Amino acid sequence: MELGEQVAMQVKRAKEASYAMMKTTTQAKNNALNIMAGELDKNRALIKQENKKDIEAGRTKGLSKAFIDRLTLDDSHIDAMIKSLSEVAALKDPVGEITEEWTRPNNMIISKMRMPLGVVGIIFESRPNVGVEASSLTIKSGNSVILRGGSDAYNSNMCLGKIIKDSVKKAGLPDGAVEVIENTDRETVGILLKQKEYVDVIIPRGGRGLVDFVAGNTMIPVIYHDAGICHTYVDKDADLDMAVNVSMNAKVQRPSTCNAMETLLVHETIAGKFLPVMKLELINAGVEVRAEEKAKKYLPDALDATEKDFRTEYNDLILNVKIVENLDEAIWHINNYGSHHSDAIITKNTQAGEKFTKEVDSAVCFINASTRLNDGFEFGLGAEMGISNQKLHVRGPLALKELTSEKYVIKGSGQIRV
Amino acid sequence: MELGEQVAMQVKRAKEASYAMMKTTTQAKNNALNIMAGELDKNRALIKQENKKDIEAGRTKGLSKAFIDRLTLDDSHIDAMIKSLSEVAALKDPVGEITEEWTRPNNMIISKMRMPLGVVGIIFESRPNVGVEASSLTIKSGNSVILRGGSDAYNSNMCLGKIIKDSVKKAGLPDGAVEVIENTDRETVGILLKQKEYVDVIIPRGGRGLVDFVAGNTMIPVIYHDAGICHTYVDKDADLDMAVNVSMNAKVQRPSTCNAMETLLVHETIAGKFLPVMKLELINAGVEVRAEEKAKKYLPDALDATEKDFRTEYNDLILNVKIVENLDEAIWHINNYGSHHSDAIITKNTQAGEKFTKEVDSAVCFINASTRLNDGFEFGLGAEMGISNQKLHVRGPLALKELTSEKYVIKGSGQIRV
Repeated sequence: MELGEQVAMQVKRAKEASYAMMKTTTQAKNNALNIMAGELDKNRALIKQENKKDIEAGRTKGLSKAFIDRLTLDDSHIDAMIKSLSEVAALKDPVGEITEEWTRPNNMIISKMRMPLGVVGIIFESRPNVGVEASSLTIKSGNSVILRGGSDAYNSNMCLGKIIKDSVKKAGLPDGAVEVIENTDRETVGILLKQKEYVDVIIPRGGRGLVDFVAGNTMIPVIYHDAGICHTYVDKDADLDMAVNVSMNAKVQRPSTCNAMETLLVHETIAGKFLPVMKLELINAGVEVRAEEKAKKYLPDALDATEKDFRTEYNDLILNVKIVENLDEAIWHINNYGSHHSDAIITKNTQAGEKFTKEVDSAVCFINASTRLNDGFEFGLGAEMGISNQKLHVRGPLALKELTSEKYVIKGSGQIRV
Repeated sequence: MELGEQVAMQVKRAKEASYAMMKTTTQAKNNALNIMAGELDKNRALIKQENKKDIEAGRTKGLSKAFIDRLTLDDSHIDAMIKSLSEVAALKDPVGEITEEWTRPNNMIISKMRMPLGVVGIIFESRPNVGVEASSLTIKSGNSVILRGGSDAYNSNMCLGKIIKDSVKKAGLPDGAVEVIENTDRETVGILLKQKEYVDVIIPRGGRGLVDFVAGNTMIPVIYHDAGICHTYVDKDADLDMAVNVSMNAKVQRPSTCNAMETLLVHETIAGKFLPVMKLELINAGVEVRAEEKAKKYLPDALDATEKDFRTEYNDLILNVKIVENLDEAIWHINNYGSHHSDAIITKNTQAGEKFTKEVDSAVCFINASTRLNDGFEFGLGAEMGISNQKLHVRGPLALKELTSEKYVIKGSGQIRV
């Protein structure tokens, strides 16, 4: 079959299945997740064997260590997938929930009911576990999903895809509830992006190149994460030990992630106490520091931080440091240089915390906690399809509820428009 | 100044203003709406004079009667704008509302706070009152707005735009809270669609050509309405008088609108009683009927309804009629031929009503009421920026709450990621 026809057939099957999924009971959906967890456990050896093929091919190809890390599925990753499936099964089913209700003067009762989006297309790059997380969330939220993984994880994706589809079948859910696109040419992405009639939302999970390609080539609504340029602001009223501890965690616990800190902002009156301590910690952790002029007083060995540095997502052990005159300057800097992802204030001052969270225009605003905590699991959402830093529909972790939207249900007794 | 620079300057000004609007008090925002209402009232003569220029130019150009109708601003339209402003002022301010809150095992308090989207770009065609409604909703919801009206309403738009901007200034809100793009070449739309860094959402209000152009040429999230192919299904357990009354209202009260009925579905066991009565009403109202084979038994003079007819938005006094075997067939027809906009069931059977509203995949599902009632005013939302029949972010009328989204606010006490 020709490639275009093949993809078209799959999206149609997914659309048809989505109407059945919409009315599937919570019990049947949870049953599917539990079967999937059991099948993953039973097929550990096979999963690792197929994954090994990808890792070996990746090494031959010279993929980076970080990339190979993301590609790898060992027993701890399989355990995590199984745990996530049982957590999602335990969460409340969002479908059918009445979120608001009011009555109009003509006695029409207006309510809003939470419903699945329909067909969710997810295009992902290296991490093969994304397919399992995406399927568990879309099944629980009553959607169909189309999985299109990248070539570097081909064997792992096909193996997991088969396990997912077998589980869906065993659970008696419609076959099209999970569709796996096998072809990994970019051409298939292009074809998928044209299926506006059948696909309700596209979620690209990958680098900037993928996100820009997707957003620039489709009329289907897209939920995406772009850059993660995250800040921690140490206020004049900060607890100093906490400021050091939280800032270091935000920078070094896993610097390659989108919610790691890239810029540290420090109130000028606390800089003299805070930065000398912070400096030693940063040196110990091997962090390269780039400092703006005023901060160089306390960090004389640091490189100069340029305008461009403040707009860069390093994803590495590099940190910008800037001293600000007050909270307003900190907020201004974050709104103008950041990427509206995850930003934190460290302060004992309640008013400063409130002002910060109200005025910082980011998906997640933290008071006295590490930006690294912006995560579906950490928030108790069971799993996530990614973190959105656009502003429409969803900001922050994209989980069950965000795979639904609300339709209006109107109960009347013969009302007409006059 | 070059056109591109001019638009770029306006969107930047709007973005800057959006940060001030985000923290503007409810009182200050309501004050602006009240001033605007007063200014509209004071400038009635001027508004009508400028509007007359557009109407005369439109007549010379040979625009249709329906188009001239949409273009016209008489005292009743000005009254309606003033009334809408005071209704929006009376509505609850959505900004800052905490919509959910929970605590994690590590004592992190997670909450979601409703915030403005930022900068809303609205591109509209004939109706000049859209500029006033859009401004009132965006101001109340703490957003900035960029108004780009069409050439046929140029004089009306410039006159209303000046009144809006003067009112914003008098109220002490930032100048960029409302930006009016004066140039009406399609080129300016293209430039606006490229301002992803400064514009958070684009709302095209106009025909299919405009919507497709916008959705196909931007990476900015778009909220749009496309077709309105709406159905009324008369169930076997319908009240016959109500069925006739509501169906006729859905078809003839204002057939040019998106929420008017295009297809009437009738349960086969009630067709013999219902259709003969309905037929007389349709003839009286001058409605052209296109009937599917089984329905022709009761409507022998009707034209044949083709596959294409069932997928057509007539916006005119034309109606498709089809007999279905049961509720499931009605739901299937609506989901497969409709545009997921507004669909109604007429039934006394509660279970049938519930099944219909759960399984029909439309923005607004009515039980025993006319599809014509899908409207921001009718729902008590004060005004609307249009009706969305996409599924992301908002389905149905787009009003105050839909011009916001929720960000996460996290209160910690030093939590880090482990």
